[in-house]
Amino acid sequence: MSAQPIVGILGGMGPLAGAEFLRQLTLLCPATRDQDHVRAVLWSDPTIPDRPAAMFDGGPSPAPGMIHGLRVLEQAGAGMICIACNTAHLWFDEIQAAIKTPILHIVDAAASDLARQGIAAGARVGILGTTATVKSGLYHQRLAARGYAPLSLDDAEMAATSTPSIKCVKRNDLAGSFAPLVAAVKLLKDRGAAAVVLGCTELPLAAQAGDRAAFGVPVVDTVEAHARAAIAWAKGELRVARAAE
Amino acid sequence: MSAQPIVGILGGMGPLAGAEFLRQLTLLCPATRDQDHVRAVLWSDPTIPDRPAAMFDGGPSPAPGMIHGLRVLEQAGAGMICIACNTAHLWFDEIQAAIKTPILHIVDAAASDLARQGIAAGARVGILGTTATVKSGLYHQRLAARGYAPLSLDDAEMAATSTPSIKCVKRNDLAGSFAPLVAAVKLLKDRGAAAVVLGCTELPLAAQAGDRAAFGVPVVDTVEAHARAAIAWAKGELRVARAAE
Repeated sequence: MSAQPIVGILGGMGPLAGAEFLRQLTLLCPATRDQDHVRAVLWSDPTIPDRPAAMFDGGPSPAPGMIHGLRVLEQAGAGMICIACNTAHLWFDEIQAAIKTPILHIVDAAASDLARQGIAAGARVGILGTTATVKSGLYHQRLAARGYAPLSLDDAEMAATSTPSIKCVKRNDLAGSFAPLVAAVKLLKDRGAAAVVLGCTELPLAAQAGDRAAFGVPVVDTVEAHARAAIAWAKGELRVARAAE
Repeated sequence: MSAQPIVGILGGMGPLAGAEFLRQLTLLCPATRDQDHVRAVLWSDPTIPDRPAAMFDGGPSPAPGMIHGLRVLEQAGAGMICIACNTAHLWFDEIQAAIKTPILHIVDAAASDLARQGIAAGARVGILGTTATVKSGLYHQRLAARGYAPLSLDDAEMAATSTPSIKCVKRNDLAGSFAPLVAAVKLLKDRGAAAVVLGCTELPLAAQAGDRAAFGVPVVDTVEAHARAAIAWAKGELRVARAAE
């Protein structure tokens, strides 16, 4: 049996995001044949309770369902786990505490991608995502801890730009999703953002619908960034450890 | 914890085919929210030895690696397993014997899709795929057992049509892959094929690169057909059992 390390993927939130993570894990891996690719195991449970509903409307917690999936991945041999959903990271500390296998935090992957694109600590970085992700400060706290200065849009600006872009992607209107995303990036750029993080699974699809030159600043595709970090881990180029270690 | 059935997916052969299966399992499922989708667990081990090399050149058998993956899926709770690779089905009997969980044979899924498209037993059905799949008779035997009359191309015809189409897809030349696929389908249609099965993971991508009306006959996308059958199983509309049961 192969001794290559195994990337665990907690998917299903939504199910396309998990499939897209696995696709990017393949497309971004330097390989000339199947056998050069990364071993992976993916748990896709779309029945995990809705994350924004749990966060804002007193709905049931997604944590027990996520912990079950993480344990399946651990038992299957995963040496490191990626959660293919930005909003799910709001439960990061609780679910990481429930398993021994380290989870690669998506904001850490985004930070590595900022560095890869030459954006150094101290820079202003725009954060786009669902209202839940932006309002929770998920990216803000963790990027600020690395020395970046995070910026985001206010409620009215999100309602006019990033939220319609996300909604277009969700109804498969990729063509319609591009212009409002450009408008959102431009607002952040005008306030001094040296780069903009696309902190949800829909916005990277919107960004693919047009010419990235329209943004005028580097953007971080968090699905790609997460997959790149997972490949680096599998190749022994990145260490991922639990916070206590 | 959810009690919804879990579809197991043996992927990695190659890794994009497994990701595409999960994508189709999502896109083809009638759903208005994440929670309506099918639960799944996917084992993606691209390090499993090459299937054509094992078949034709005395390379190491992929069976032990596949059996390991099947056991992981079984232990994770899969109630039924799909193998997201046509050629891997050449080891079907050996690997099914090693686990209790039933495997949904991809040719049975293709046969269900022929019926769905109104192609009744007795009809001539063209088979396209890799040389390994076509020469092994994988589709021929199992479709003939259901009363279909399978047809395929000879070596020179494959070398001139379906093989170049597959090669174009493998090097991401989707535009170039379409015309040779149309030529392959036309040869089979001219010999009386009432439908043509795209029996590999590349040809369905080639078929998406142009207008399907160019084929002049219904085609079976085996990735879609396999995912449709898995959804039917998860919804309780399809029974999948081991041959002995």
